[in-house]
Parts: sequence; C-alpha cells; structure tokens
Amino acid sequence: MHAPIYFEDMSVGDTFESFSKTITESEIIEFAWKYDPQPFHISKPAAEESMFGGLISSGFLTIAVTFRLFYQANGFQATCVGAHGIDSVRWMQPVRPGDTIRATMEVLALKESRSRPEIGNVRTLTSTINQNDEVVMTMETPWLVKRRPAP
Amino acid sequence: MHAPIYFEDMSVGDTFESFSKTITESEIIEFAWKYDPQPFHISKPAAEESMFGGLISSGFLTIAVTFRLFYQANGFQATCVGAHGIDSVRWMQPVRPGDTIRATMEVLALKESRSRPEIGNVRTLTSTINQNDEVVMTMETPWLVKRRPAP
Repeated sequence: MHAPIYFEDMSVGDTFESFSKTITESEIIEFAWKYDPQPFHISKPAAEESMFGGLISSGFLTIAVTFRLFYQANGFQATCVGAHGIDSVRWMQPVRPGDTIRATMEVLALKESRSRPEIGNVRTLTSTINQNDEVVMTMETPWLVKRRPAP
Repeated sequence: MHAPIYFEDMSVGDTFESFSKTITESEIIEFAWKYDPQPFHISKPAAEESMFGGLISSGFLTIAVTFRLFYQANGFQATCVGAHGIDSVRWMQPVRPGDTIRATMEVLALKESRSRPEIGNVRTLTSTINQNDEVVMTMETPWLVKRRPAP
C-alpha cells in the first residue's frame, strides 16, 4: 500500500503518475462485445475497412483502464470516496492492440466542502499516454477526497 | 435490424428511447474488480459500511451499459461512426444490484461537418433512468453520424 494522499496533501499543479498497462487484442474485443459492439472494436476485418484501419479500444475501456491504473498506483485507495462524474472526455488517438498506456493526473483546483467537513473537492486533468508519448485521451474529474483526520 | 437513422433523420428536440437491462450483483463486482476496485463496488460488507449502504455499480459500468442499450436498441448501428468524447457525465443516484436501467437520448444540436461532407456532428443529452423513474446518470455526447447517401 502507498501512503494515503489526503486533500491536504495536494496543491494545484501537482502531478501524479500511474504505472502502465499493455492493452491486448482479446481485452479490446471482449470488452466491446459486451458494452460497445461497434465493428471497429469487435471485428478485425471490419476494423481494417473502417477509418481506423484496424481494431481500436473502446473509449469506455480506455477510461476504465486509466482509472484502474491510477487507483492502484498511488495513495488514493484510502482517501478517494468517489466522484460526481467526469467532464470533457476526449479520445484523441486510437488505442490499438499491443499499445501500452499510462496516465498523468494534474490537480487543477481544490475546494473544501461546505456541507461535509470531512471531504474535499479536487478537480483533476488526466492525460492517458501511449508508448510513443502521444496523448490518446484527456478527461477532467471532480473527485471527492478525504481530508486528513485531526491528530 | 432497425432502419438506419441518418443525420438528416434527426431534429433538435428528438428523443430516442432504449430498452432496459437489469444490473446484476456479479456484473457489478466483476467489472469493478477489473477496472474500478473501490470497496463499495467489490465487497458487500465494505459497501454496507460505506456512505452508500450497500454495493453500487461503478459509474464506468453505468456509462458502458447505457451506451450498449442505445447502440443495440435503435438504428444507430449502421450510421454511428464514433464520438469525439463524452461531456458532463454526472452520477446522480446509485445503481444497485437488481436495478433495471434504461435511457433516453435527446438531440441538443446538429451541425454539418465542414471537413467531412459524409458526416454530421450530433450533440445529445443522455439520461439513464431506473425502475422507479429516477434519473441515475446524465451525460452529453458529441457523436459523428453518417449523412444519408445521395439517392
């Protein structure tokens, strides 16, 4: 376990790094078959004929893997209590079988909660990056993060 | 197959309805174990002690199921060619095991593409709704939709 990162441990401009994961062909096809069965996610021949020229990850899979990378890599397991949602997700480059993605998360804003003194609001910009250092996705997240308990 | 819904077939204010799906306990736990292993998504006792009072669906699962419901239910399979991203996702109510969700999608804006005459830009507001008619999630999506081929 990493040391917990509380609201008080963050400053605007801080950047956190995830580790990385290789996205496999079977993962792309199986996820999409359940949740996003567009031809360019589930069928190699159809994907080759599409504007992407081959299989690409569902954008929802890219979001989910990015979240998992962060949740596991840093000290947020003990302090993250959820999020109101996600803002401004942009899929900028395809994620293809064999690509390895990691993410960086920059703190954009910090605000104490008026209604819940044990919680802080943290807005972050997450960039998901492939093995060629290309940004494949960006998104902003309004998190709820625990405040450091009084000693 | 439903009849294809082309860009020209949509008007601002049009609303599309999905069919519905019951969200199971195993689906919630297995999805979250891979992609969103927060305690209130993967562990019944931990979830009972959380602010949610029991297991709830990962918000990413709710997004993915909502997309699948739409993609399968209407005539978008033949005309949707992807999306730039998602905007303003808000998780408003928990989705719990046994809940049955459906969605409505309202057309907010339509714009022809300057660079790609075969494609139109469609902005929609999707509302995911449970069996008690409570809105559990909303999101906006900037789609790319095929234009009707010249006869």
